[in-house]
Amino acid sequence: MSVQQARENDLSHLSGDDIRKRIRAGQHAAHTAGLAPGKLQCNLAILPEAFALDFLRFCQRNPKPCPVVGVSDTGNPMLTTLGRDIDIRTDVPRYRVFNDGRLSTETTEISDYWTDDLVTVALGCSFTFENALMRAGIPVRHIEMGRNVPMFRTNIDLVPAGPFGGQMVVTMRPLLKEQIEDAKRISARYPQAHGGPIAIGNPLDIGISDLNTPDYGDPVDFQPGEIPVFWACGVTPQNVLRAARLPLCITHAPGHMLITDVAEDAETTIYQNNTN
Amino acid sequence: MSVQQARENDLSHLSGDDIRKRIRAGQHAAHTAGLAPGKLQCNLAILPEAFALDFLRFCQRNPKPCPVVGVSDTGNPMLTTLGRDIDIRTDVPRYRVFNDGRLSTETTEISDYWTDDLVTVALGCSFTFENALMRAGIPVRHIEMGRNVPMFRTNIDLVPAGPFGGQMVVTMRPLLKEQIEDAKRISARYPQAHGGPIAIGNPLDIGISDLNTPDYGDPVDFQPGEIPVFWACGVTPQNVLRAARLPLCITHAPGHMLITDVAEDAETTIYQNNTN
Repeated sequence: MSVQQARENDLSHLSGDDIRKRIRAGQHAAHTAGLAPGKLQCNLAILPEAFALDFLRFCQRNPKPCPVVGVSDTGNPMLTTLGRDIDIRTDVPRYRVFNDGRLSTETTEISDYWTDDLVTVALGCSFTFENALMRAGIPVRHIEMGRNVPMFRTNIDLVPAGPFGGQMVVTMRPLLKEQIEDAKRISARYPQAHGGPIAIGNPLDIGISDLNTPDYGDPVDFQPGEIPVFWACGVTPQNVLRAARLPLCITHAPGHMLITDVAEDAETTIYQNNTN
Repeated sequence: MSVQQARENDLSHLSGDDIRKRIRAGQHAAHTAGLAPGKLQCNLAILPEAFALDFLRFCQRNPKPCPVVGVSDTGNPMLTTLGRDIDIRTDVPRYRVFNDGRLSTETTEISDYWTDDLVTVALGCSFTFENALMRAGIPVRHIEMGRNVPMFRTNIDLVPAGPFGGQMVVTMRPLLKEQIEDAKRISARYPQAHGGPIAIGNPLDIGISDLNTPDYGDPVDFQPGEIPVFWACGVTPQNVLRAARLPLCITHAPGHMLITDVAEDAETTIYQNNTN
């Protein structure tokens, strides 16, 4: 591979705006891990306005799994508070469309599904605090192993709102005892990205029977002395939305996130505040 | 005054629950500053469900003046996520009722106004970070002087949503240059209570012409070398709600806040998370 080809394949030098342009033009339909470094990436939930108030109430009541970082106007596909020229119909690499809770299609754009009564809700994701952990020298095992993060259903009840409720899904990262206080402190700085851990130690305490068989993602290795640390996971709202069996609901495909123009360490997630 | 009378007059030893019981019974209709130390106190907005989605969008887009810490179910007067047995119709010492943006009455309970389509939104207030500043030895001038905090209208545009928009209102506290970094760091830890400062220094930069004539509250003295530091203020959503001229809107009366059972330094403002 030539140097030029390598550079073309390495998209990490591109801005969020440039990446979104490529996605919009159909030139990038792959996952977004490592892209637009330093910018907030988001989980996505698009749903009819009739359910939006209850969904926002649900997220407010469950801020660790469901940190809301942006909400569109009803029917407006532009996410003006998260960046310059974000069209949610085309600017995410891969979407999943659900009808009555059943996956009906996976697609790279949703223009044909967009209607005047849809509301987009963007939710923070764990990329943000993982980057902060790695900057502090704390290892993130699934990234070291080139795997997807292991995710587990738990017995932790969510606070319900309207049709939305259920149990929390968590991610797990093995850490040494002496790394845990730093990891707690650092991740707690990012309430827009699941915040501090939900549980530390015995997986049985939160209803997880086997760390080697995650419900989603891949298992990871433990090294001697490491303890499992559990964080709230963005799969939680996805599962809650499916279980609510809305007539229509659109999410991102796992790993194929919305890339925003908001700095991932910004005090608030509102683009205007960062520029005006 | 006997020791017993003094103790009866000093309510600061009572729990939030006990204070709310007194308020509900009509035994306390005064302000809430200093009561239930360590517990989150809230600004209050009660509005018809038809406007609630837009109001939550507005708050999400303006998180520093409008930090949402609790939202009720529609028509349910109980604020279950903020404490044990909080009935929003009776448990705030003093309310203001607005019709079409005009103050129609000030009252100590709103049972007669409650309807099945009302939604309560509780918003964080500056008591939280002021307590944290004082614990760190940073002076809060208006408290030292026994005055209300000085508040000013600014030229800082809010990010609009539906009928809600306008300009931000800020509070001002004078600080020495060497206190400012600590004050920024400490207040930024409380995103549920307006977070870090909005502006520091020249009041003209944000459209304030005279620090001695606040738009609300009382002026405070500057000591040699002190610089004005401005934080987003909970009067912002109150003004925005009035300007939107909703058919009905109910707020707390200034200083007469909702006292919750949530610890003011809790990572999230959800009561269940703190106890389950």
